[in-house]
Amino acid sequence: MSLFITFEGPDGSGKTSVADSIEEMLRLEGYDILRTREPGGTPIAEDIRAIILGKRKELLDPRAEALLFAASRRQHLIEKIWPALKQGKIVICDRFVDSSLAYQGGARELGVEEVLTINEFATEKRMPDLTLLFDIRPEIGVERIKSNEEREVNRLDLEAMNFHERARNTFLQLAQRWPERIVIIDAEQSLQDVIEDAYKVIKAKLENI
Amino acid sequence: MSLFITFEGPDGSGKTSVADSIEEMLRLEGYDILRTREPGGTPIAEDIRAIILGKRKELLDPRAEALLFAASRRQHLIEKIWPALKQGKIVICDRFVDSSLAYQGGARELGVEEVLTINEFATEKRMPDLTLLFDIRPEIGVERIKSNEEREVNRLDLEAMNFHERARNTFLQLAQRWPERIVIIDAEQSLQDVIEDAYKVIKAKLENI
Repeated sequence: MSLFITFEGPDGSGKTSVADSIEEMLRLEGYDILRTREPGGTPIAEDIRAIILGKRKELLDPRAEALLFAASRRQHLIEKIWPALKQGKIVICDRFVDSSLAYQGGARELGVEEVLTINEFATEKRMPDLTLLFDIRPEIGVERIKSNEEREVNRLDLEAMNFHERARNTFLQLAQRWPERIVIIDAEQSLQDVIEDAYKVIKAKLENI
Repeated sequence: MSLFITFEGPDGSGKTSVADSIEEMLRLEGYDILRTREPGGTPIAEDIRAIILGKRKELLDPRAEALLFAASRRQHLIEKIWPALKQGKIVICDRFVDSSLAYQGGARELGVEEVLTINEFATEKRMPDLTLLFDIRPEIGVERIKSNEEREVNRLDLEAMNFHERARNTFLQLAQRWPERIVIIDAEQSLQDVIEDAYKVIKAKLENI
């Protein structure tokens, strides 16, 4: 039994801590898990990511950036995610197509439909089985990042708050568009409550396949 | 007066030699020319190309490759081609979208429509004003490359002849699809005749804008 789960939402939503806990809980129950995040450690995808984050990134056009994310995603799918699913694993991936739709499509205003088109080319329209959207108001997410000593505030964190507002609104629109796939988790709760909600949703899905 | 011209066709069709001559002829007539070829010397596009041609290229998935070509093309458009057109130059570009359609879409069988979709994202649907398709039967093109001491036969040259057949057939289908943009030049003629044909087509276009 394979299951492809993605965790989406802004930095500061706690999704990585939640994924750590969920991964541990599912492993203890005997599930075979691939925990991954883009670019997934595949050398080509890492090379692509190095261009996106590299010293010339100020010159990188937003459409070129979106194409590079899609290329990196494709390589991650081909080399890691699809083989793991074929082996019957549960794949938990931190960020996937919805992040491109929310950040490049919505926040950078390239358009969700246009960014979806190039991602459908990359994924051959195979979307995750389940997506948990960790929803949090941007002002609270950014505040959490700043107070987290283990993690420096990066360029994206500092971009105008309305960038984060547009990303959040796009994420919420995606959840309306694909209600059978995307489940919204209230990420303003305590971490323990967020973990519990996420665990329940995943268990329910596992019991229904 | 700006004009965006692309030269398309297989290696061995003589298109680079023709472009050399045409560029020279047009410069002598006083035209301001940008002669370029993908990735166009822009650092980011070169970085992307380095991944496509790099030591891990055997692992590169064909769809990821097509996305990388589109990303590189986008950067080339943004940094060089569109600014030159804005300055009123004639841009002569060796290979462009049609090469992706013929090689990734047709020869590698990803599908012309699918590869067109990601390229329309990259180009915002702005196609060249004029495309010269240097048409030659694959067996003659490959023979020419092998007998050309200045140029080594590369991996693509050696791929099965039916790969080249599929690329040629796709190029010819593109010419049927966009007859107002793509002009077929018989590249099996002598180089001098090919240059004359190409020059006539370009001059006719210049006189009609």
